Amino acid sequence: VRFAWETVAEKLHRLTRVRDRRAIRRELADAEPVDIAEAILRAKPEDGARILHALEPARAGEVLVELPPSTARSLAVKLPPDAIARYLDVLEMDDAAALLDELPEEARGPLLQAIPEQDAAEIRRLLAYPRESAGRLMTENFPRVQMHWTVDDTLRMLRDAKGKYGATVYLYVVDDGGRLLGVCPLRRLVEEEPDVRVEAIMNTDVVTCPPDMDQEDVAMLFMRYDFLSLPVVDVDGRLLGIVMLDDVLDVVEEEETEDIYRLAAVQSGREPYLALGIWSLAKRRFGWLLILFIAGTLTGHVLLHYQSELDQLLGLAVFIPLLMGTGGNAGAQAATMVTRAIALDELVFRDLWRVLGREFATGLLVGLLLGAVGYLRAATWHLTIGLPLVVMLSQTAIVIWATTIGAGVPLLAHRLGWDPALMSSPALSTLVDATGLVIYFEIAHLLLPL
Amino acid sequence: VRFAWETVAEKLHRLTRVRDRRAIRRELADAEPVDIAEAILRAKPEDGARILHALEPARAGEVLVELPPSTARSLAVKLPPDAIARYLDVLEMDDAAALLDELPEEARGPLLQAIPEQDAAEIRRLLAYPRESAGRLMTENFPRVQMHWTVDDTLRMLRDAKGKYGATVYLYVVDDGGRLLGVCPLRRLVEEEPDVRVEAIMNTDVVTCPPDMDQEDVAMLFMRYDFLSLPVVDVDGRLLGIVMLDDVLDVVEEEETEDIYRLAAVQSGREPYLALGIWSLAKRRFGWLLILFIAGTLTGHVLLHYQSELDQLLGLAVFIPLLMGTGGNAGAQAATMVTRAIALDELVFRDLWRVLGREFATGLLVGLLLGAVGYLRAATWHLTIGLPLVVMLSQTAIVIWATTIGAGVPLLAHRLGWDPALMSSPALSTLVDATGLVIYFEIAHLLLPL
Repeated sequence: VRFAWETVAEKLHRLTRVRDRRAIRRELADAEPVDIAEAILRAKPEDGARILHALEPARAGEVLVELPPSTARSLAVKLPPDAIARYLDVLEMDDAAALLDELPEEARGPLLQAIPEQDAAEIRRLLAYPRESAGRLMTENFPRVQMHWTVDDTLRMLRDAKGKYGATVYLYVVDDGGRLLGVCPLRRLVEEEPDVRVEAIMNTDVVTCPPDMDQEDVAMLFMRYDFLSLPVVDVDGRLLGIVMLDDVLDVVEEEETEDIYRLAAVQSGREPYLALGIWSLAKRRFGWLLILFIAGTLTGHVLLHYQSELDQLLGLAVFIPLLMGTGGNAGAQAATMVTRAIALDELVFRDLWRVLGREFATGLLVGLLLGAVGYLRAATWHLTIGLPLVVMLSQTAIVIWATTIGAGVPLLAHRLGWDPALMSSPALSTLVDATGLVIYFEIAHLLLPL
Repeated sequence: VRFAWETVAEKLHRLTRVRDRRAIRRELADAEPVDIAEAILRAKPEDGARILHALEPARAGEVLVELPPSTARSLAVKLPPDAIARYLDVLEMDDAAALLDELPEEARGPLLQAIPEQDAAEIRRLLAYPRESAGRLMTENFPRVQMHWTVDDTLRMLRDAKGKYGATVYLYVVDDGGRLLGVCPLRRLVEEEPDVRVEAIMNTDVVTCPPDMDQEDVAMLFMRYDFLSLPVVDVDGRLLGIVMLDDVLDVVEEEETEDIYRLAAVQSGREPYLALGIWSLAKRRFGWLLILFIAGTLTGHVLLHYQSELDQLLGLAVFIPLLMGTGGNAGAQAATMVTRAIALDELVFRDLWRVLGREFATGLLVGLLLGAVGYLRAATWHLTIGLPLVVMLSQTAIVIWATTIGAGVPLLAHRLGWDPALMSSPALSTLVDATGLVIYFEIAHLLLPL
């Protein structure tokens, strides 16, 4: 199942030579939209557009929504406007809004004219919320229930509305002003006798979120409290819409990708790897590399400063990459563990001293062990009397320094409202390179006849 | 809302001096189990055990399930066995099995004796599946429906079973032999007229998974296809249980943590940062550090090999950390992006040449830019005629080499059935350090009078 898109991609490749739209529809009838999207991402744009156009509007719309924004945009401009209008018409409104948001500005007006006024109004309302907010993720298309209704009333309403609402797991209870009063799982409702009133079985202790809450925070709420859906309410408690868990899953994946990229000093972004061109790939990476390069020239200054020591004792240079490298590695480990813990809300700034203590102790333990190995390695190279000891002590000190800095900086950054992943592995290596050299040369200075 | 556990932690701290169990219950009545767990993780073990014991069994059990395994185990042994038995009795069976699995071997038998035989049998069945498999995540406690039943029959069955089943979103249709025939959302069912038969509305095209599927693959299925629950069937198509999305969310988070740790060369594990002692922290990190340290001694060999060049031209040493550092950073970026794409199933081995081409081009672009900056920096230090050119060319070559290797090795590792995150940022830095030195010295040898 895992690589279903590979089968679809092969099918798609064959289908690029097929002109019969019905044959294309039939061939792709069983494929999941997400797999078709993956296959289209790998096809030539004109083939992708033609395949998409051959699909039923509902499926084509779902595929477009699964595509990365830049790909969706470039495909959409290749399709006739009335096709896009048909897609918008059949999609869930939050998906339709997301799709419209990806299209060129000038295409939006005419498209909103072409779809039913009620849908257009809902899309406009959703697009009025900030990007990446709860408002953008929510749907307005769910059943609202009155508290004085009985189970029978409610079930009758649902039967009458057949096919109107999307996936319904919870029933939301509102008053005449649209204010949220409570929630009742559909499962609970069907378990009750027909004459029981909704107010008797609803849960009034509802967790909600405001429409401008950042989608990352919304995702955290879902992940932490295992919700299946979350009602969005305005400041007056009026129910604006609901966010469904399945819409949040994509956000979770995107946010994780962002976090992972940041830890490797790659500029954050949510486009999949293959959707990025060479230029975008370079742009994502160059900024941080340049900053780190400039910071890294500090190592040159340090080495120039200790030029006479290097001159006198060539053996010193031999251990520079090894000591720096190990320090950077140890620091990256600490920084990554702490950054992840902050992202999961497990650590807060108040834990700083506790964390520093733990990392100091861990660094001491690991550093001593590595220092001992370093001693043996240096001793077998027979370079200079005393150098093995310098290597051992420097390695221990550098590892302690690296783990402590690596753990402390993310907590400090978080406290200052910056991104804790600021202390990426590359940034940490660069910092430890320059400072570690100073530690190394100072210890050498102290113990060797320089 | 985000730091709800902080409020709970403060409450808990006050409650450690309270002896009245009912007061403790009342104070924590509104707190979510996951927040109580977070607060207990930060409390002294004896305080944690006492608070836990004061809670209602159902809540205490839910809190225990949310705790990291090692903490749950150390708390559980402080509680009277009959308390644990009561928790097991009220938990969902998959959670009860997970809790029991965390307890010391010798405690399990008596506990299984103390709970109702039917529950004990289900727990034994679940525990017979391998750890981290779909079988361990599933519940057997959901309604099964016959295809010839009408909507009315089904709703009556659900009313009669009131309170018996957990969260129900889909109804699974089975034959007399227990084989899965189809699925129908509860929402679809209630929209139909009472006399419609289930077989007329059920969907027979059901995605399933085997009980021994790895939980990471199960999570991928949920994330990719946006399921709310997934039926687990044996080789004969018999429905064994269902996995609910909310049970998978914790797995998603744990697996992400594993991936992120691996990218920083931290041994994988799912315990949160604060649940690990110094010794465990060191153990998680030392293994990789040692391997990388030993691999890193290669840099020493390289430097010894080029000792005469270093001797003749001291300026060469000045740029070593800078060139190595930048190469490692650029490589880590490429490795991280490709590893993440593999984890999301966006890249397969067949993409190797395409990826290498992209990374070569990106490395060339970024390397040339950084090389130019390196040229300027080297030129202003007035060390040796020709050295700026050597730095520029080496920097370009090292970045291209690093991005290509960084992107290629994860794909190769994945192909060989190894973990693509093998090429962690630290591993890549270490590899680039040694090979990059060779590139640097060979270019210097070619262009400078050495």
